[in-house]
Amino acid sequence: MIAQTSKAPYYAVIFTSIRTEIDEDYLKTATQMEELAILQPGYLGHESARESIGITVSYWKDLESIKNWKKQSDHLLAQKNGREKWYSAYKIRICLVERDYDFKL
Amino acid sequence: MIAQTSKAPYYAVIFTSIRTEIDEDYLKTATQMEELAILQPGYLGHESARESIGITVSYWKDLESIKNWKKQSDHLLAQKNGREKWYSAYKIRICLVERDYDFKL
Repeated sequence: MIAQTSKAPYYAVIFTSIRTEIDEDYLKTATQMEELAILQPGYLGHESARESIGITVSYWKDLESIKNWKKQSDHLLAQKNGREKWYSAYKIRICLVERDYDFKL
Repeated sequence: MIAQTSKAPYYAVIFTSIRTEIDEDYLKTATQMEELAILQPGYLGHESARESIGITVSYWKDLESIKNWKKQSDHLLAQKNGREKWYSAYKIRICLVERDYDFKL
């Protein structure tokens, strides 16, 4: 679903990735990280899709919330496994969402 | 592919969308818009994936480049068709990319 974020400004983390062929624990961990992110202070929502590349955008109240989530211990282990097993490349972009607008039928 | 953007700061436009069941001219127009975006001054790259939602992130040098692309005439027509035919909902977020980092095997 499209994340129902509150009024801008807020922050976005764009995580773009290419997967390896190693699936071991990937889906389980991805689901756990999703459930855990939702519980973090400052979490506002996220959106995700994968075809030849994967794009996950998570939305946060401020930079402090992003820093705390980055160093959360289960998430640190997932990041390590990500580099060692699941991803051949990724890029992370930390962004200030300055404006947003939407359309609905 | 993961967009090879230059050093931050730069801008990102996150376009998150839900498609209708109407396919008429959709792929043709999406391809045309992609080819046209690449030619715009200030275009830096883009990334795209679709599952239950679609996420397209385009990267731009500055806000001026984004404004010019938004009002480009062929793109204006595509936006109109998007609301009338292809999308049941979308959200657009204009973001300042403050920092980025990447990982490669």
